[in-house]
Amino acid sequence: MELKTLTLNGAAGRSDILIRRTLIGEAAERCLAVFAPSRVHIVTDSNVAPLYLEMLAKQFALPVTSTVLPAGEEHKRLSTVEGIYHDLLKAGMTRKDLVIALGGGVVGDITGFAASSFLRGVPLCQIPTTLLAQVDSSVGGKTGVDLPEGKNLVGAFYQPRLVLIDPNLLSTLPTKTVADGMAEVVKYGCIANREILDMIFRDDIQEVVSECVRIKRDVVQQDEHDTGLRMILNFGHTIGHACEKLENYVGLTHGQAVSIGMVAAMRLSNELGAPEDLTPPLTAILQKCGLPTELKHDREAIFEALLSDKKKFGATVNFILVRKFGKADIVPVEAGRLHELIRKI
Amino acid sequence: MELKTLTLNGAAGRSDILIRRTLIGEAAERCLAVFAPSRVHIVTDSNVAPLYLEMLAKQFALPVTSTVLPAGEEHKRLSTVEGIYHDLLKAGMTRKDLVIALGGGVVGDITGFAASSFLRGVPLCQIPTTLLAQVDSSVGGKTGVDLPEGKNLVGAFYQPRLVLIDPNLLSTLPTKTVADGMAEVVKYGCIANREILDMIFRDDIQEVVSECVRIKRDVVQQDEHDTGLRMILNFGHTIGHACEKLENYVGLTHGQAVSIGMVAAMRLSNELGAPEDLTPPLTAILQKCGLPTELKHDREAIFEALLSDKKKFGATVNFILVRKFGKADIVPVEAGRLHELIRKI
Repeated sequence: MELKTLTLNGAAGRSDILIRRTLIGEAAERCLAVFAPSRVHIVTDSNVAPLYLEMLAKQFALPVTSTVLPAGEEHKRLSTVEGIYHDLLKAGMTRKDLVIALGGGVVGDITGFAASSFLRGVPLCQIPTTLLAQVDSSVGGKTGVDLPEGKNLVGAFYQPRLVLIDPNLLSTLPTKTVADGMAEVVKYGCIANREILDMIFRDDIQEVVSECVRIKRDVVQQDEHDTGLRMILNFGHTIGHACEKLENYVGLTHGQAVSIGMVAAMRLSNELGAPEDLTPPLTAILQKCGLPTELKHDREAIFEALLSDKKKFGATVNFILVRKFGKADIVPVEAGRLHELIRKI
Repeated sequence: MELKTLTLNGAAGRSDILIRRTLIGEAAERCLAVFAPSRVHIVTDSNVAPLYLEMLAKQFALPVTSTVLPAGEEHKRLSTVEGIYHDLLKAGMTRKDLVIALGGGVVGDITGFAASSFLRGVPLCQIPTTLLAQVDSSVGGKTGVDLPEGKNLVGAFYQPRLVLIDPNLLSTLPTKTVADGMAEVVKYGCIANREILDMIFRDDIQEVVSECVRIKRDVVQQDEHDTGLRMILNFGHTIGHACEKLENYVGLTHGQAVSIGMVAAMRLSNELGAPEDLTPPLTAILQKCGLPTELKHDREAIFEALLSDKKKFGATVNFILVRKFGKADIVPVEAGRLHELIRKI
């Protein structure tokens, strides 16, 4: 399969995104084409390390060191980042050397923030190993960690100079983890390109990943720092986050919550003026992907959880309205009106 | 005196720098001309808070909260930043609200890093209260904290949207603190404009501050992320840092170390080809400012301390060579040669 190359021109620099099966086998070569490090430090986690760490490290004819984080979102915190700083110093890393994030969304977010802030920024390559990370979190430069008060409250916008996406890595994933990423894939189908909804069950996964990344690149290119259009990527996430919160982030995976959130948001889209109720076909697609679709939580509790998020925006909530598959708009909805609608769905 | 306005166009946004006596009295007005916050959070320290915190807070017809840090470089660490995050969350700060750093270099560095990373970046205004902060650290977007392993190892390049410089604030400073900033003022005279060396003893302090800030703005504008020209601002700092390190950062202030470092660097400049030995006039100026000039440390120990810094650059050290007052170049010097020269001075 041909190499797919996408470029994102960020405010503080350019990001090249390469997509092809077996790309991880030539990762060092690809890195050395854009970086000129004297040493390399790989950050990964305890799930990914046994699969790919040695294979990746061996490719470099340079000193390679690594940090293996314990797997899990509960380690996405400042003390983990601090541990990475110490490892980078122990390894003698300078502003010319290369940090590689090898793993899913949590590894990418933590490592990205560490790389953005160590010596005020060192070169970064993302090698995402989950579907969620390949189609979403590894692209666009959002990095960060959680605080006890909430998720992703601290971080930086920091573009990886290089993103290497190898869809073959997805074959070693548990079914549930793939389903988790599928929620984001379906999201791209809803907001930007309806063809994705057919491609999921028909095409090569490389094609699906490439198209999702292209959409994400286009959106981020227009709104890198998340002050407008980038919000469109939040389709299903507002109600999804509320559900995750009500489950204390352990009852539902992110993808499961987004799946439930998208169905609810699609129902609201219809209430808010979308000409056709797309809830039935969306539900069918998500179920086929092995994702839950039923909103089981108390509507008042959901609205309360929403409100605490809403503080970020002001008196209205920016709602992502899907008019038809592939076409979404950001519409401000007054909080009281939203409350009323959420009671109805 | 007329308002002096300088603009810095950074990669991720613009920074307006305003300079005038009594500017702190109209700080809120100046802030509200560029920011549209719903609330304001001021970070300051235990030295500055009794002098200006209430006066500043009272100007805003908005909810104002504050964090008062204990004064001192030993608090410039990650746990202090974490404390600021919690205060920002408790205050309900969003990405539209305003963080103000009111204080010297330490407060500015810590607060800048907190503002750069809280919610991946919130609007920031710097109000520097020391000469060092007014002519150097508040301008240019370098933020950060120390790690146990060394100074400024973690941080971000993050431009404050607004910098308000009121030279009247300097009148409440202890003489030693003013002298500390004078070392940086003399540095600008050496590297960029020899007239500053006369202005120090003749002109209005507002003129001196304005000219230093203009030079810093020009340099940063050309090399925001410190990969080339910005190094020129390190004149006197390489040997200065070595001295600070040998004193465990308590025996010498930063300005005292830079003063000693500049005299040594000027001697080296002469050895490396500057046509005239400017050490005697430089020494006289620094002494007149109340700064130490004699390099008392063991030369071998200085070279060792230099080498551990040098890792950042590679096999050669980038040395700032002052050819004449007001004219400096960055010249690579091979480590062995530098060792030899340091033994001689």
